[in-house]
Amino acid sequence: LRKKRSSVLRNPPPQTTATILSKTYYNVHSHQPESLDWFNVLIAQTLAQFREDARTDDAILKSLDKLLNGPQKPDFLDSIRVTEVSLGEDFPIFSNCRISPSEDEPGKLQARMDVDLSDLITLGVETKLLLNWPKPLVAVLPVALAVSIVRFSGTLSISFIPSPENSAGSTTLAFSFLDDYRLEIAVRSLVGSRSRLQDVPKIAQLVESRLHSWIDERCVEPKFQQIVLPSLWPRKRTTREQPRPGEGGTDD
Amino acid sequence: LRKKRSSVLRNPPPQTTATILSKTYYNVHSHQPESLDWFNVLIAQTLAQFREDARTDDAILKSLDKLLNGPQKPDFLDSIRVTEVSLGEDFPIFSNCRISPSEDEPGKLQARMDVDLSDLITLGVETKLLLNWPKPLVAVLPVALAVSIVRFSGTLSISFIPSPENSAGSTTLAFSFLDDYRLEIAVRSLVGSRSRLQDVPKIAQLVESRLHSWIDERCVEPKFQQIVLPSLWPRKRTTREQPRPGEGGTDD
Repeated sequence: LRKKRSSVLRNPPPQTTATILSKTYYNVHSHQPESLDWFNVLIAQTLAQFREDARTDDAILKSLDKLLNGPQKPDFLDSIRVTEVSLGEDFPIFSNCRISPSEDEPGKLQARMDVDLSDLITLGVETKLLLNWPKPLVAVLPVALAVSIVRFSGTLSISFIPSPENSAGSTTLAFSFLDDYRLEIAVRSLVGSRSRLQDVPKIAQLVESRLHSWIDERCVEPKFQQIVLPSLWPRKRTTREQPRPGEGGTDD
Repeated sequence: LRKKRSSVLRNPPPQTTATILSKTYYNVHSHQPESLDWFNVLIAQTLAQFREDARTDDAILKSLDKLLNGPQKPDFLDSIRVTEVSLGEDFPIFSNCRISPSEDEPGKLQARMDVDLSDLITLGVETKLLLNWPKPLVAVLPVALAVSIVRFSGTLSISFIPSPENSAGSTTLAFSFLDDYRLEIAVRSLVGSRSRLQDVPKIAQLVESRLHSWIDERCVEPKFQQIVLPSLWPRKRTTREQPRPGEGGTDD
């Protein structure tokens, strides 16, 4: 029975990378990089909405408060108070999208694009350093710190890969940055109560290296992010209807 | 306290559609449509993988068998046997991507693009029509039917919208086709046991109108599909690492 069934399913020749490129009219050696202006607009609109939502009811302040004062806060820090948050006013610009075979697996095709963001995204906090040695609370040192991301630029690689565990075919999106990305930050610091030290260089270095590690450990080659995408198959339960002019929203 | 906190969060001027377009350098009146060749390649690669996976272990045949003989099968049909499946060998081509304000909500920006697929995607089945009137099984009429999608072309609208219920900011993707899409199908039918009727026109019409309704009811304006997208924020648990040359896959 198994044998008979298999002949039911047409067996076309396997589709190699060369076939795929030829059937999509893409020559990796001669194709011009493509613009992504339409994508920049859609992303900007989403980001603008995110910024607006974050301000509603101080949602972002509450989340940051909870995150900063969560179980990961080390013992030598007093509670952390958020003093300044700026989510920026500008938008990332993606450009120069091009297809290239993956360096690790030449049979896999990926898209690479340039990303550039010039903005001012700031988080300012106040806390106290609690010095517990040689005895508990021997000294308490006030610290104020504001970190701003001023610019980020890099090359983003994306590809779709089949989920290895899942024969039902959940597609996953993989993305990572090449390791030559640039991150410019600005750090303002104020340490101490009586003899206040401003902008201690060590602090700026520490913050910068922490930010770099955070990015490197998550999404800079050879590390990459692998996100399972939802199915786009049109279903009844994901169907919505636009209200006609003059009507309100649908309840569906 | 609430008052004080709110001043912590910088309150930039609201970002209107005009601001968003200006900051992303997009003029909806003069911007040229953009190509999506890179996207076609990534989609083609994913589809090629899907077709290969579907053949593994006859996975697609088993799924179709289950679907066709499921609880939705009407009583007047005997069990349905799949006789032919072809998943096609070609790929959809997306092109001419452009941003335009939504007709229903001029404040919302959407991307529109042309989609074209010329392929041969076939499902063939055999079953029996069971005539239960005036008495049970008064007649049994063998039916063989093969439906092929030969071409699909249309205009696809996509946009990202904030999930209305979710202040955590789950972004959703909305997509739909304009109602002038074209679907070309080919239907082969064979009805009866002794006096066999070939390619009954009524059957072709019935199948065609069913296919159109299926599409119209799900993803043709004013209906649209709304799919919740996963967060792309880089997290530890979605981080993977590329094996270095000579190494096997990671277990992570």
